[in-house]
Amino acid sequence: MPPRLLALLTAPSLDRPAPGKPPFRFIDVEQPLVSALDLGVTRGDGVFETISIGGGRAQATGPHLTRLARSAAMLELPEPDLDAWRSVVYALAEELSGVKEAFAKLVYTRGIEGGDRPTGWVFAEASPDHTAARRDGVRVVLLDRGYAHDVASTAPWLLQGAKTLSYAVNRAAVREAHRRDADDVLFLSSDGFLLEGTTANLVLKRGDRLTTPATSLGILAGTTQADAFSFARSQGLTTSYELLTPDALEDAEALWLVSSVRHAAPIRAIDGVERPIDRAFTAALNEFLVGRRD
Amino acid sequence: MPPRLLALLTAPSLDRPAPGKPPFRFIDVEQPLVSALDLGVTRGDGVFETISIGGGRAQATGPHLTRLARSAAMLELPEPDLDAWRSVVYALAEELSGVKEAFAKLVYTRGIEGGDRPTGWVFAEASPDHTAARRDGVRVVLLDRGYAHDVASTAPWLLQGAKTLSYAVNRAAVREAHRRDADDVLFLSSDGFLLEGTTANLVLKRGDRLTTPATSLGILAGTTQADAFSFARSQGLTTSYELLTPDALEDAEALWLVSSVRHAAPIRAIDGVERPIDRAFTAALNEFLVGRRD
Repeated sequence: MPPRLLALLTAPSLDRPAPGKPPFRFIDVEQPLVSALDLGVTRGDGVFETISIGGGRAQATGPHLTRLARSAAMLELPEPDLDAWRSVVYALAEELSGVKEAFAKLVYTRGIEGGDRPTGWVFAEASPDHTAARRDGVRVVLLDRGYAHDVASTAPWLLQGAKTLSYAVNRAAVREAHRRDADDVLFLSSDGFLLEGTTANLVLKRGDRLTTPATSLGILAGTTQADAFSFARSQGLTTSYELLTPDALEDAEALWLVSSVRHAAPIRAIDGVERPIDRAFTAALNEFLVGRRD
Repeated sequence: MPPRLLALLTAPSLDRPAPGKPPFRFIDVEQPLVSALDLGVTRGDGVFETISIGGGRAQATGPHLTRLARSAAMLELPEPDLDAWRSVVYALAEELSGVKEAFAKLVYTRGIEGGDRPTGWVFAEASPDHTAARRDGVRVVLLDRGYAHDVASTAPWLLQGAKTLSYAVNRAAVREAHRRDADDVLFLSSDGFLLEGTTANLVLKRGDRLTTPATSLGILAGTTQADAFSFARSQGLTTSYELLTPDALEDAEALWLVSSVRHAAPIRAIDGVERPIDRAFTAALNEFLVGRRD
């Protein structure tokens, strides 16, 4: 059985330092960790990140921690102590140095209701085998996310663009995709703009250009998408962030859902209609993404 | 210190019975209960109910359990064993027989990721003192919930009308209300229909009629609102479920947010504009609501 690791942070936020104490302690994964009164579980009131680990080295930790802090700010959580979080991620990564691909999931909650300190932990284990999805692709369906494209600016209390623990809708959308004989979802705004997947960003290729929906649409700024763009530019391609409608799917020569653990999964069908896969570019992109090291 | 009780269900769902075992066991509230891998905390993937307890007797347990089952069905959770849940609620209520007003919070999650059994527990303690809110009222602000009024039928994967653990948005909306010098929120659909509060239903009175927004709007079917309607009819009033726009707020002679623990809180200001309170009716309504016994 491959290792499964769990570490509880001693002081996850900057406002409650714990000088002289070790930054974390390992916890038995089989034991309960979270209070029944923790707002993370009673209200989905917290944020998370998932960081991939390759051969014992974390990938893109900086951008993930930056996004954790941004999500926390959107929820008005105490500012996380990113140095403490980084030290935990690196410690767990080192424990998984014998594993080719693993991941660390960082969870940061508002803590026990009525209390004054947040809760933070990191769980890490070997990643599932995503070989087939990376090579042969995934089938997606277009689903309405219900919000207009500009909701992040008109109604910031809806927390669009924050990576929160309130992900029940994302999981329900994936169940709807399965009902429609697909693997995953591509969300549309209520006024018809392409957004993102349930746990991934959309990237499409046309000619010598990679494009992804603009983050002004209340979607997550993708860490893996950003690295995919870096790779593309190193190959002489241009990149852009745009407002896209489903027409853009028709025009694209290749499409992907990109995310931290599965990396680049080509989209091989949309609403049941087959799409071409660029196998050579996909393989090169995934080789680059898998090979990243902090 | 008043008692705080926590009970973990042995078999919260009908598909995994545990014959011969006691239906629950008490857990030390100070101890962790939930696995870091429980989807309730990692994805807000679960449902809840809050049931008020008066003098050791639960209130409206049947409607709350019916709604728990309906929320669970919307999330495709295993069907909850309502007899087991009821027995836990009643046992905790009895332990709180010396407390005038208390509440029980039922939480039912999808359980540990990759596992095949849900997690269920009930927490109970004395209620906060809501005397002032019941008597003097609350100030609300109107906030956009971002979804169109018919989203529950057009996009059921958005889970509108289910009482899920993914409540980060509701809490962010309350923070926005506080920023605007108010106590609570009245949500509007993106196309301008009145919906509900963050944890309460809207009830308004005009002439001899009590009205609440129709549950087809993707809002929670209110258990306390239903009992408020029963009380109103016993007083010779009529009741109705309607599609309402903010004009209805102007026309109303009195308005309330009604919920299970706070009961009927008159709305004394909307977006900073004072509103009249019907003190006599409010007092009679709350006396009725507080006095309910299963």
